[in-house]
Amino acid sequence: MPDILHRVGIKSSSPDATYNALATIQGLTDWWTYDTKGESRTGGVIKFRFGSPTEPGPGFDMKVLELEPSKRVLWQVIDGPEEWIGTRVGFDLRQDDDYTIVLFRHEGWREPVEFMHHCSTKWALFLMSLKGLVETGKGAPHPDDVRIDNWK
Amino acid sequence: MPDILHRVGIKSSSPDATYNALATIQGLTDWWTYDTKGESRTGGVIKFRFGSPTEPGPGFDMKVLELEPSKRVLWQVIDGPEEWIGTRVGFDLRQDDDYTIVLFRHEGWREPVEFMHHCSTKWALFLMSLKGLVETGKGAPHPDDVRIDNWK
Repeated sequence: MPDILHRVGIKSSSPDATYNALATIQGLTDWWTYDTKGESRTGGVIKFRFGSPTEPGPGFDMKVLELEPSKRVLWQVIDGPEEWIGTRVGFDLRQDDDYTIVLFRHEGWREPVEFMHHCSTKWALFLMSLKGLVETGKGAPHPDDVRIDNWK
Repeated sequence: MPDILHRVGIKSSSPDATYNALATIQGLTDWWTYDTKGESRTGGVIKFRFGSPTEPGPGFDMKVLELEPSKRVLWQVIDGPEEWIGTRVGFDLRQDDDYTIVLFRHEGWREPVEFMHHCSTKWALFLMSLKGLVETGKGAPHPDDVRIDNWK
């Protein structure tokens, strides 16, 4: 089954700030989408929505499978676009000198559909938003995310 | 075998400008790396290098497998990092209303190594450079490319 893979290195003296951006609702709000609600605890469900302040939008519900402080965050998609349901989104962290290395994977896609190509590019830009958040205090979460194509 | 997949949409009334940026040495110079030499014709070899103006750097040699005007560019890596040799890099273009859609794939990786994660993110940013070049006349080719991690 095809996977989306990415690697970013975040200039930071420890992985704690990056972990907090991945493991707390406030952190997720600051780099992925402003409309993030739910419980970031093992077994909890987080709801990510991509609408506008005046109109709720579609999105994803993720069940939190693993939270290992400063090391790993792993979710499973339990609701959202059909292609996403059952897939898993994971972030593995480690410290390499001055950089927190994030190894990202979105695995379990059934087919390499065109939407998967879009999501792969979009994830890269959101990971750059995460990097910006930790390095400078400012990310580019939806709706301020970078437009990559006619699907946004 | 794992593949890197991406999709960008470039605001343009026809795919010609994007095709030219992919199928000519000048175009490639303007979004991927300033040090691009060789022959962009079927069976030709293009050499992409990532050094500095004062120091030649490592890079990739690509054999051009397919050039279909305004539709497709396909290369095979014949020299470069071991993980890249034999892999294929392809761009399929089509017009969707005001956007030229680029479906990108870098296929034939033997293992999902960490370097593949890095290359996946890096390709996304270079495709955004291609998009910038066609939409605004200015790309971000190496050495002005966006740093994504401690590998550059």
